[in-house]
Amino acid sequence: MRLVTIRTDRGERPGVVLRAPDGTDRVLALDPGEDRERAVAATDPATLPALDSVRLGPPVRPGTIWCVGYNYRGHLETPDPEFPNIFVKTANVLAGPQDPVVLWPATTQVDYEGEIAVVIGRRAHRVSEAEALDHVAGYTLFNDVSDRDWQSRTNQWALGKSIDGFGPLGPWLVTPDEFGDLAGRSVEVERNGEVTVRSSTDAMVFGVAFLIHYLSQVITLEPGDVISTGTPARSDAAQAVHTPLAPGDMVTVRVAGLGALTTTFISEENR
Amino acid sequence: MRLVTIRTDRGERPGVVLRAPDGTDRVLALDPGEDRERAVAATDPATLPALDSVRLGPPVRPGTIWCVGYNYRGHLETPDPEFPNIFVKTANVLAGPQDPVVLWPATTQVDYEGEIAVVIGRRAHRVSEAEALDHVAGYTLFNDVSDRDWQSRTNQWALGKSIDGFGPLGPWLVTPDEFGDLAGRSVEVERNGEVTVRSSTDAMVFGVAFLIHYLSQVITLEPGDVISTGTPARSDAAQAVHTPLAPGDMVTVRVAGLGALTTTFISEENR
Repeated sequence: MRLVTIRTDRGERPGVVLRAPDGTDRVLALDPGEDRERAVAATDPATLPALDSVRLGPPVRPGTIWCVGYNYRGHLETPDPEFPNIFVKTANVLAGPQDPVVLWPATTQVDYEGEIAVVIGRRAHRVSEAEALDHVAGYTLFNDVSDRDWQSRTNQWALGKSIDGFGPLGPWLVTPDEFGDLAGRSVEVERNGEVTVRSSTDAMVFGVAFLIHYLSQVITLEPGDVISTGTPARSDAAQAVHTPLAPGDMVTVRVAGLGALTTTFISEENR
Repeated sequence: MRLVTIRTDRGERPGVVLRAPDGTDRVLALDPGEDRERAVAATDPATLPALDSVRLGPPVRPGTIWCVGYNYRGHLETPDPEFPNIFVKTANVLAGPQDPVVLWPATTQVDYEGEIAVVIGRRAHRVSEAEALDHVAGYTLFNDVSDRDWQSRTNQWALGKSIDGFGPLGPWLVTPDEFGDLAGRSVEVERNGEVTVRSSTDAMVFGVAFLIHYLSQVITLEPGDVISTGTPARSDAAQAVHTPLAPGDMVTVRVAGLGALTTTFISEENR
């Protein structure tokens, strides 16, 4: 299933995306705690509103957003690093899949990073690699928006990674049964319609099961926590002409089976 | 005032520490939302239970714990760095002032760091240095417990800083009117009764007002968020004989006007 968070004037509520016979995506709103399977079984998708007509929030509200640096081969480090390079993005970054990202006046070197985000479904503490995937609620897309100036002012990246709104998540959480195996998935990022990143999950250094296992040796992962698995490098051609993001830029993260997360960057005046 | 969180069998409730005529600390439990000033004015401290008899939780539950590396002169970097080195500790580290810290089996190089923690009281977004202290709810003590092995596995420290329970906070939040000016405060850390860190807030590189101002340029600081202002370095003599923390070790962080935060380190079996 594809699970979404629907924004209404009275707050957020859960929803499920269903494909109608005409091939369009529709959305079924659920009551909190309502049985999803039963609600879906009792629904004719053709009668539902179009997904496009609905405002979406982030599919989950993570307690912690764990991130991994340099986790695709070809991104800076060779040979493979011994340990995953873990950092954190703070709660103030979280944005919904339709929310624009504001290029705040104090930011000058804003960049995008297209990533697969794993959402924890069941508490994980010292789990083996073999058991790790049993703790996954699903997968979604994340744009690890970063300001390279703030990120590189000191040796710790936290501030450049944690700027308000610099973390669009979505559009939906795809459950593991629907998503299947992560292997061999294409990972692409487009800026204004041009593909700048083109890779595959086969180039990941540390896979999802290992990351959960590794973190859980010293961290208790809680339901809703996100592990964003890192971005592949930009192509050499795209890197050669890269410039910081500017108002009006649109970035799309696209992974086979997870859909697309498109984010518009705006100036503060157009907020 | 000195504000605490009291743990009861039915959950946590706020409290105020009052000095009785006999010189002992007593604790007044409040109902959530109760007017503190009025409750204190109506109370005879001599009739209250001893603070020692009460179980305490962390005085606040921060949304984010911001930390600063190398923020005392004499700690590694000379001359003064241009920017504060900001990193984050995650929510799973938070512990109360009486909670022991578990030396988990996967940790081998656990170390303490005694720090002054600033608690945000009013949302701060792009505040000037002159206005910054208006956003402070108070000050408390923090032990930025760190595992040097996990911290140094990669260039980002997050994992060694974010181990379950590695963040005792307390014992109380001292309000700014009671605390007064941060200047000239002694900052000391003892391990098993021996002073290993002895410094003063006058050796801080970036002061509280600047840190709030700086973070707030790109981060919205929310009430309850903590900025832990960094640890002074161990004395050369203490560093020369330093060993990782072991079960049974006790570490006390002591700052003039903020009391003392004493943490016992235990093995997992003695949890």
